[in-house]
Amino acid sequence: MRFVAEPIARLIEELNKLPGIGPKSAKRLAYHLLRNPDEEAKALAEAILTLKEKIKLCSVCFDNTDCDPCRVCQDKERDHSKICVVEKPSDILPLEQTGKYNGVYHVLHGTISPTEGVGPEELKIKELLARLKDGSVTEVIVATNPNVESETMAMYLHRIITPLGFRVTRLARGLPFGAELEYADDLTLGQALENRREF
Amino acid sequence: MRFVAEPIARLIEELNKLPGIGPKSAKRLAYHLLRNPDEEAKALAEAILTLKEKIKLCSVCFDNTDCDPCRVCQDKERDHSKICVVEKPSDILPLEQTGKYNGVYHVLHGTISPTEGVGPEELKIKELLARLKDGSVTEVIVATNPNVESETMAMYLHRIITPLGFRVTRLARGLPFGAELEYADDLTLGQALENRREF
Repeated sequence: MRFVAEPIARLIEELNKLPGIGPKSAKRLAYHLLRNPDEEAKALAEAILTLKEKIKLCSVCFDNTDCDPCRVCQDKERDHSKICVVEKPSDILPLEQTGKYNGVYHVLHGTISPTEGVGPEELKIKELLARLKDGSVTEVIVATNPNVESETMAMYLHRIITPLGFRVTRLARGLPFGAELEYADDLTLGQALENRREF
Repeated sequence: MRFVAEPIARLIEELNKLPGIGPKSAKRLAYHLLRNPDEEAKALAEAILTLKEKIKLCSVCFDNTDCDPCRVCQDKERDHSKICVVEKPSDILPLEQTGKYNGVYHVLHGTISPTEGVGPEELKIKELLARLKDGSVTEVIVATNPNVESETMAMYLHRIITPLGFRVTRLARGLPFGAELEYADDLTLGQALENRREF
């Protein structure tokens, strides 16, 4: 990056570290910020800093939140008898966007992966089991990604939760194998929710 | 964006304002920053803020710079008898990356556009003419974009600078490297024919 002023080169470098942002996009974004009013760049920088300051994990469901318990866990309008179990916080937004789900969530923060040495105790599974003890829950919807490792974990959850007397369901197949829940379209994901089935 | 914590929603919104970043990319980037170490997010936010603080226009060539005159204008190794005229600062990097140019630059900051009410006096044209007066320049390379408005401006620059006794040149027109003759547009192919050269 010869003869590009250092602050520009540094921003291009930082932007280039982000997923899906190649060197050309990074350059375009940097020059966009430079051309546009100071307020726009400041608002972006502040949004990034505030994010890291304000966001904690909900002590109930372990979603990212700026209040505790999070808004979903606090919401009396929602159906607290259903818990939808997801692998990561970013899996919740697409489920919400389907408009087909009114229960609450539980974020595991990962998936069981023997190859990477992640066992059940590394995940928020005992916290899930603790939530099931208060007697208000009737159904656990396992909304893990349709791939081999998550599949193994889904079966594991089914095996330990079903004997406790809960209905354990899963998202319907209809999601193509290998897809990422985070990026699925509303329609497919909505159908997958509606067609959830017993194990 | 129901039930997404406000700091996340706000960052998604700010990212979504950037060119080429749609709602899905914005969401992916926001969750990426959330998942990754604080230092990465801080480095990005600081790079954005530093950019807007430190970058000024070079008083000689009007490129973005963090020192004045900019590094190119200060560089004694470069050929100060050639000035390459570009429309905007981001046009300089690709020219530098060719490794074929060792002269200096002049940034006009726009193009003459009667429809948008931009005349020559809104651009850094009188500053260019002032630079030509010191006697060290022999050639002005007009490196404007190949479109109708920029073409009009290129002709304008040619008309006012040539009579002052300078060599005024422009970037060659023709087929881009890797192009398929079969799919080239009429205009490009016509110009490639007109500008054909000896081997």
